[in-house]
Amino acid sequence: MLPDSVLSILKEMMEERIKGASWLAKRGAEAFLVLAREIDESLLEDAIRELKEEIVRVNPSMASLHNLVRFFPVTNDREKIIARAEEFLRRIEEAKRELASIGAQLIDPGDVVITHSLSSAVLEIFKLAKIRGKEFKVILTESAPDYEGLKLAEELESLGIDFEIITDSQIGLFCKRATLALVGADMVTKDGYVVNKAGTYLLALACHENGVPFYVAAETYKFHPSQKAEDVELLERPLRRGEFEVRNVLFDVTPWRFIRGIITELGIIVPPRDLQ
Amino acid sequence: MLPDSVLSILKEMMEERIKGASWLAKRGAEAFLVLAREIDESLLEDAIRELKEEIVRVNPSMASLHNLVRFFPVTNDREKIIARAEEFLRRIEEAKRELASIGAQLIDPGDVVITHSLSSAVLEIFKLAKIRGKEFKVILTESAPDYEGLKLAEELESLGIDFEIITDSQIGLFCKRATLALVGADMVTKDGYVVNKAGTYLLALACHENGVPFYVAAETYKFHPSQKAEDVELLERPLRRGEFEVRNVLFDVTPWRFIRGIITELGIIVPPRDLQ
Repeated sequence: MLPDSVLSILKEMMEERIKGASWLAKRGAEAFLVLAREIDESLLEDAIRELKEEIVRVNPSMASLHNLVRFFPVTNDREKIIARAEEFLRRIEEAKRELASIGAQLIDPGDVVITHSLSSAVLEIFKLAKIRGKEFKVILTESAPDYEGLKLAEELESLGIDFEIITDSQIGLFCKRATLALVGADMVTKDGYVVNKAGTYLLALACHENGVPFYVAAETYKFHPSQKAEDVELLERPLRRGEFEVRNVLFDVTPWRFIRGIITELGIIVPPRDLQ
Repeated sequence: MLPDSVLSILKEMMEERIKGASWLAKRGAEAFLVLAREIDESLLEDAIRELKEEIVRVNPSMASLHNLVRFFPVTNDREKIIARAEEFLRRIEEAKRELASIGAQLIDPGDVVITHSLSSAVLEIFKLAKIRGKEFKVILTESAPDYEGLKLAEELESLGIDFEIITDSQIGLFCKRATLALVGADMVTKDGYVVNKAGTYLLALACHENGVPFYVAAETYKFHPSQKAEDVELLERPLRRGEFEVRNVLFDVTPWRFIRGIITELGIIVPPRDLQ
């Protein structure tokens, strides 16, 4: 049985609507940290096993969660777990910084960058490009039904980055005004497909059709070690509009041939790839 | 100066959020009818001129409105205007019936038909296919921000047609499950491009990519006599989400090469075409 403090982190992870794969991985690592600190050392091994299962169950299509749980040994050694958790959290931060530094090089002054949904990796790239003095504009989708695009708009506003918000169905229309597309990823499959917020695939198609280079920002801990595109189970959440139930599959899958490159902390790689 | 009864029809046309090109053309014809019946005959000619301008101004990208006003002579002959208005209204109804009869042949038993927004022509096709005893299923978008998809859902429910509603950003995902795509049109340009609710272009791209035949249902009065795709002005309406202004261009333009055929009351035609 997991302690309440850990269960409440898991609940928070289950209920989160807006934040993505990085945030989930970070909270997951913190769950290991809390567990190791709080539980009786003799019970730790079993609790670790249970926590691993629960974390993957939060969203089975999040490679970051798979990679997180693989990072922890099953042991009763409290200090070892604490050290691993701290190491994972440090690596997340380092990867984010490195990725942003590489991604920001892609933005040229005067660029109009179109994005979909809210990606912490993409936001870091925008921040760094701005710090480096580049003037550019962002076109972003509101991202119904959870409207995480509006959260991104708030961030861009506070950073002084010029932006325009569109409804999701205007992706095709506004894509024509963009010079670059940048999105995040919840997972990159073993065969190089990108799982990200539903609508990403549409943006990729529209970019392909209109000659706009389409890049994905994804730290390597979002690369799944084994799962291929055809095996991905896409999470769905209930959604109602008035008297009707509306399908709400959160993610879609973008084939690698629409992707110009995947920006990672190790460099920009071109799928199909095999990092492992 | 137009009579209040006519101004109130124009106001209703301006404010309508959900109904499309057919409804607008019909209300426009009714405006001519009301005008001819109410105004002093000596003032009719000037009023006709004014009404023509006002009707086109409701939405300059609606070919149906251009074709409607072209249908009326500038004359003080009240009876002539009334006869033309009645003739136009009769033609709208006839065209809708003929189009539905042709379009319903495209639906095979077991088909899964994906559509976007609410089109009266597409709805007529669904009705007739159902009357002819075909079992099929419809995947439809909620169509933010006005949610006219939910209105279509109500209609399908009352007709006993099986359906599933999706958010607009799931078009790419659910397109893969469809066997046929059917959308309406607000205008077909002289060079064979289709102007329809924003998001139609995305559906067309996704259908193209996934081998789903994409058909447009449009009576010939929706064909613009002269305007080409590059000249189309797309109407935008204000939209706010919380503190932010969101772009809300109502229409997008789908190139003819993604269109398998345009279903009209005269048969299915394949763009590029020149009906005039």
